[in-house]
Amino acid sequence: MTDQQDGEKATNPMELYEKLAAQGDQVRTLKTAKADKDEIEAAVQLLLKLKVEYKQASGQDYKAGCPPSENSGGAYNGPAADGADDQDTVDPWNVSTTNAKGVDYDKLIVRFGSSKINQELVDRIGRVTGRRPHHFLRRGIFFSHRDMHQVLDAYEKHKSFYLYTGRGPSSEAMHVGHLIPFIFTKWLQDVFDIPLVIQLTDDEKYLWKDLSIEDCQRFAIENTRDIIACGFDVNKTFIFSDLEYMGSSPEFFRNVVKVQKHVTFNQVKGIFGFTDSDCIGKISFPATQAAPAFSNSFPEIFGSRKDTQCLIPCAIDQDPYFRMTRDVAPRIGYPKPALMHSTFFPALQGAQTKMSASDANSSIFLTDTPKQIKNKINKYAFSGGKDTVEEHRKYGGNTEVDVSYMYLTFFMEDDERLEKIRQDYASGTLLTGELKKILIETLQPIIAQHQERRKRVTDETVKQFMTPRPLNFKI
Amino acid sequence: MTDQQDGEKATNPMELYEKLAAQGDQVRTLKTAKADKDEIEAAVQLLLKLKVEYKQASGQDYKAGCPPSENSGGAYNGPAADGADDQDTVDPWNVSTTNAKGVDYDKLIVRFGSSKINQELVDRIGRVTGRRPHHFLRRGIFFSHRDMHQVLDAYEKHKSFYLYTGRGPSSEAMHVGHLIPFIFTKWLQDVFDIPLVIQLTDDEKYLWKDLSIEDCQRFAIENTRDIIACGFDVNKTFIFSDLEYMGSSPEFFRNVVKVQKHVTFNQVKGIFGFTDSDCIGKISFPATQAAPAFSNSFPEIFGSRKDTQCLIPCAIDQDPYFRMTRDVAPRIGYPKPALMHSTFFPALQGAQTKMSASDANSSIFLTDTPKQIKNKINKYAFSGGKDTVEEHRKYGGNTEVDVSYMYLTFFMEDDERLEKIRQDYASGTLLTGELKKILIETLQPIIAQHQERRKRVTDETVKQFMTPRPLNFKI
Repeated sequence: MTDQQDGEKATNPMELYEKLAAQGDQVRTLKTAKADKDEIEAAVQLLLKLKVEYKQASGQDYKAGCPPSENSGGAYNGPAADGADDQDTVDPWNVSTTNAKGVDYDKLIVRFGSSKINQELVDRIGRVTGRRPHHFLRRGIFFSHRDMHQVLDAYEKHKSFYLYTGRGPSSEAMHVGHLIPFIFTKWLQDVFDIPLVIQLTDDEKYLWKDLSIEDCQRFAIENTRDIIACGFDVNKTFIFSDLEYMGSSPEFFRNVVKVQKHVTFNQVKGIFGFTDSDCIGKISFPATQAAPAFSNSFPEIFGSRKDTQCLIPCAIDQDPYFRMTRDVAPRIGYPKPALMHSTFFPALQGAQTKMSASDANSSIFLTDTPKQIKNKINKYAFSGGKDTVEEHRKYGGNTEVDVSYMYLTFFMEDDERLEKIRQDYASGTLLTGELKKILIETLQPIIAQHQERRKRVTDETVKQFMTPRPLNFKI
Repeated sequence: MTDQQDGEKATNPMELYEKLAAQGDQVRTLKTAKADKDEIEAAVQLLLKLKVEYKQASGQDYKAGCPPSENSGGAYNGPAADGADDQDTVDPWNVSTTNAKGVDYDKLIVRFGSSKINQELVDRIGRVTGRRPHHFLRRGIFFSHRDMHQVLDAYEKHKSFYLYTGRGPSSEAMHVGHLIPFIFTKWLQDVFDIPLVIQLTDDEKYLWKDLSIEDCQRFAIENTRDIIACGFDVNKTFIFSDLEYMGSSPEFFRNVVKVQKHVTFNQVKGIFGFTDSDCIGKISFPATQAAPAFSNSFPEIFGSRKDTQCLIPCAIDQDPYFRMTRDVAPRIGYPKPALMHSTFFPALQGAQTKMSASDANSSIFLTDTPKQIKNKINKYAFSGGKDTVEEHRKYGGNTEVDVSYMYLTFFMEDDERLEKIRQDYASGTLLTGELKKILIETLQPIIAQHQERRKRVTDETVKQFMTPRPLNFKI
């Protein structure tokens, strides 16, 4: 597992199971055909090697015809299994680490069995799209993926794909961290010229939080305004709320039920850490987050086509949902969705946890005034600087734990200027107050412009985006 | 529990909880008002008595403000808990007994905590509707109920209600036993002049059986033809398939999610016997069978009204779903549905089990020819007669285990003629072959007429019944 290449070695028990089944067929074919002895021997050796890997990944012996549906270990080391030998907690509801530099993302790649977005892949995206890769790619903010090479192979052969991302509308207030997947998804939509579906999981928020259905639906609409303000193309984008769309699309619901039939309570227990005291709504919800990854969930967009591949840009804490989705997909006749994972957007207080809308002091909200932005950054943004100006000048600051610097890596597009800031801060030329000032002056106009665009989003625009309808794209 | 009166003593922990909460309020009110000492003492004694009953029913101590959401015992002795001290198995998937007379229905009333449909209630239904009670009521085929007096009280005050029943479409073939709830529901619709919704749980069949979604949807349509052939009034009846309607009604889906939020895995485990290896679709399905019991699930029929009471006529094996529904209803602001339970329609081989569509020899299908009906009854119908004609003439037959006689109680409307047959068979005057001949001659025209009516059900008629639309009724 240390030699993690971009080719994505199968570590998911289901993927290994499929490889094993195919290799078993291969051995039988060779034997029946009375093939060359060495050839048979090589095929058998590979089969044995796969069996060992399968046992490691699934905790079970391989048995032909018995897929590893009761995943108990291996790649499915969800929240329940985590934490014992690792200081980072990463699941859809909790992100925390004891390390001030933030989560160890390289370790996470190994643990989740995904692949690193390395320079080769970044370069390839540049070549295929004819566009300079987004700074989130250049700087490793989107750092992990599944199956991106497969998506690009197909795209080069003029086989298109679609994008799917989402948001859980737990309040009216969105913060700057929430923008990251949407900014990147908009870039992907622009450079690949492809359709996009955005799921607002208002049902999830109703099930998990002490909120009424009406509250969650209202938050979904308010959040949709912020999402639209990111600049998505209405002719290529469909935004939907589960509580509304699930009851408007028999095709979507049928895919939810298909997924529900192929996932057991044991599995969601292992993946999400559910217990017997959880409500049955939580237990079945993962199927609702899986369904948008299958193109025929959207007949208005894709007709009955079920083979259009899906690419999901999201923060890495959402990966458990999509590991489950990828496990189920081949068993119900659909392609596995590809994924691109982002790091977390740190809280003002430091990268030990991510920015959270429920802690006002940890977050810069999209509704904050220039003055609020300035005050929050000056007051709360964790500094990697030294205690006194003299020491700072002498020893320099630590950009690896400095939250203001981290935020600039997200929001300052100019690579050269950012690098100069890094060097100046590290050398002590740039003081903490000066660094914070640069961040304030970077963020204030970005948020002001967002507010300006959001103001122009009318009820009519919201309705347009949220109406199931054909989108403008070629496959 | 032996003195089971029609007043329906609460044995459900949730009902007891509510009584306790009300009684606690009563004691406080009396104390605050400095009421008569004896009066307070009596109220306290009742409170203590209820606490004991609550502990017995729920296995927990009463705690104000903490409803018994984690039902572990008491009335929730579902399939998992059953069988230890009782020879009858009755749950939505299994019905069996070792007793040739069939399930002990009086015991079932005690176990499920429902109320017997006694002569007083039968008479009252006759008075309220101004019609002679249906022979299913006169003969105890619909034998158990919940809250029927409440429904009738309201009806007498010109507050209407609606009917809800359903069917799981596991194959194209329906048998005569499947007609029982529909025949009775049609009678209720006629005499009360009220709307009716019929749910086809094609999602349930997909989740439980090795069938494709397409198969289940096709069976749903075929079964709908048979249901329509029972003579329902298209202006008062809406028939829907889950796989179609769930994705066509956001209101319905929102009620499903509301129920899902208020039921835990522990509860469905207790009620239905689910295990960790069951798929999450099965685990969440009970919420889908609950939702039609709430009137605002059907906005085309009831608008946003959520207080129209629901009456569910069904076989008693479906009661676990509706015990759960009644438990949840007050917690999400809806009235509890009332219920009327029927006995099972016995298999040809005897009343130890019910007729099953998956065992062709146990069933008379709605598609059987007159000849098939004759042959099946003559060949398979379990006889309560003696081994020889001489013995039979001397000792008489046993109508309590004779399947042909049981079937006549379902399908022969003439009470006097039926009673004469019973006496003649019991005295030995009537021979088994003669009894079977009477049954054959009773069933053949009923099924032929059903087939004739079914033939006249066009695709257009099916579409009419299955289109969400306003129904013709007054509330």
